[in-house]
Amino acid sequence: VNWIVGVRSCSTVAQQEVQNSGASHASSAAQAADSNKEEKEIVSYWGVPPVKVVNKDGTVWKWDCFRPWETYQADLSIDLKKHHVPLNLLDKLAYWMVKALRMPADLFFQRRYGCRAMMLETVAAVPGMVGGMLLHCKSLRRFEQSGGWIKALLEEAENERMHLMTFMEVTKPRWYDRALVISVQAVFFNAYFLGYMISPKFAHRVVGYLEEEAIHSYTEFLNELDKGNIKNMPAPAIAIDYWQLPPDATLRDVVMVVRADEAHHRDVNHFASDVHFHGRQLKDVSAPLGYH
Amino acid sequence: VNWIVGVRSCSTVAQQEVQNSGASHASSAAQAADSNKEEKEIVSYWGVPPVKVVNKDGTVWKWDCFRPWETYQADLSIDLKKHHVPLNLLDKLAYWMVKALRMPADLFFQRRYGCRAMMLETVAAVPGMVGGMLLHCKSLRRFEQSGGWIKALLEEAENERMHLMTFMEVTKPRWYDRALVISVQAVFFNAYFLGYMISPKFAHRVVGYLEEEAIHSYTEFLNELDKGNIKNMPAPAIAIDYWQLPPDATLRDVVMVVRADEAHHRDVNHFASDVHFHGRQLKDVSAPLGYH
Ligand SMILES: [Fe+2]
Ligand SMILES: [Fe+2]
Ligand SMILES: [Fe+2]
Ligand SMILES: [Fe+2]
Repeated sequence: VNWIVGVRSCSTVAQQEVQNSGASHASSAAQAADSNKEEKEIVSYWGVPPVKVVNKDGTVWKWDCFRPWETYQADLSIDLKKHHVPLNLLDKLAYWMVKALRMPADLFFQRRYGCRAMMLETVAAVPGMVGGMLLHCKSLRRFEQSGGWIKALLEEAENERMHLMTFMEVTKPRWYDRALVISVQAVFFNAYFLGYMISPKFAHRVVGYLEEEAIHSYTEFLNELDKGNIKNMPAPAIAIDYWQLPPDATLRDVVMVVRADEAHHRDVNHFASDVHFHGRQLKDVSAPLGYH
Repeated sequence: VNWIVGVRSCSTVAQQEVQNSGASHASSAAQAADSNKEEKEIVSYWGVPPVKVVNKDGTVWKWDCFRPWETYQADLSIDLKKHHVPLNLLDKLAYWMVKALRMPADLFFQRRYGCRAMMLETVAAVPGMVGGMLLHCKSLRRFEQSGGWIKALLEEAENERMHLMTFMEVTKPRWYDRALVISVQAVFFNAYFLGYMISPKFAHRVVGYLEEEAIHSYTEFLNELDKGNIKNMPAPAIAIDYWQLPPDATLRDVVMVVRADEAHHRDVNHFASDVHFHGRQLKDVSAPLGYH
């Protein structure tokens, strides 16, 4: 487990380093020559060197796309079998829409669960970003606090992107995977954007059901691993660092923690939909913490 | 200074609480009645209670829109006078565009610096969100890591929104302020979205220059405070908690830390533009840390 003591204290120290070396790189000559000048003219900020984040044991942190203080241990005790019973028409519409989307996915991917996981994560990372962005803009327009929901949804999006970064190491995308992702993203981003503007209640419910299906898919993935149909290879290094897994962790461990994450997303999104169902606004209800 | 020990450890504990009480609220009856059932059917997630975040001294944290681990002390030693000299045509275009935008703002707000700050923060919170979202979608489409830039830009947006939440306490928006914000956001969001898709180099440069102007405005704000033209009232409670200010902090202290934040944004955005200028991509250069 790699940790740096304190979040802010670390970045403050790091920042000092940046500024010191940045100054010596770029502007020390100019400073010496004309220290009375009203505005220090910087020709290029290129001299700002990247910050070296250091692990507790003194080794250099090797990832830029996430930092030690964003790593965590997944809550494997989370209830995987919770299911929101569709009550009203909107719920049923969301439920059957997701069930209908499952069919082409099943046909297309069949038993290629690694590929399936990778492709579906490119879609899963969209709703959190769109929802967070729309709530952010609304908060600015209405001069209202967020209740923590903007951050919660953005963190969901970042977590889904980390799922993708992980499965990329397991299954390499091919050119037609890339082509598929581009077209699916173009459609899904706009559809979810519109959907969230029209009815956040419906949008969050759809995501809730999508996450229920994701749990199901990852459970099948685990079954295939246990049956030996998929080789249980060592976990990718990025996954070991992100979920604080032991060095000898396997793909099976990774699928376990990813599935626990999806169960968290399911709870957050069904909860958000219920908040709207009860006629309240997200900003008035504190966002759940400790979810990803 | 309010702190909870450890980021993840805190939220893990909090989460356990949620789940325990959530279960007892909503589904304990169902569980007892039919514990063998394959899928636990949840009629409503409404039973998930909000998490109580506790300060070090045992008192309850009073904000939902930010949490203790997002608070920090601003770096007041940051160089306020750095200025990126426009070198090429694109730089000059960005520079003169920002200078031109300054004129109507000066005319409209004149010496109402509190109102000006509030209104400009509603605009300032847009670029980070748009840039972060576009980089996020690009990362998904191309199966590429982010270099930490998505997080850095989203955190800039969150920080700007906290500036707005602070100045809302100082100047209450009136109905025509709200109308102005809605129309300005509609135009600026789309313009920046398009601009960032066409040239992130140009977009980041514009933000860099906007931040230089913001520093200028806040310096004038401080001058008015020092001259006594604006009353130096006690700092809003939200600002004291967010920037870890002493309990007797004043509006002047708040403007000081906000100005330091703007200087950080200036450096991040000029740096991002320079990365593009040198023909490289953001993902290949580690994002600066410790900025907000
Ligand atoms: Fe996922
Ligand atoms: Fe998910
Ligand atoms: Fe700001
Ligand atoms: Fe700023």
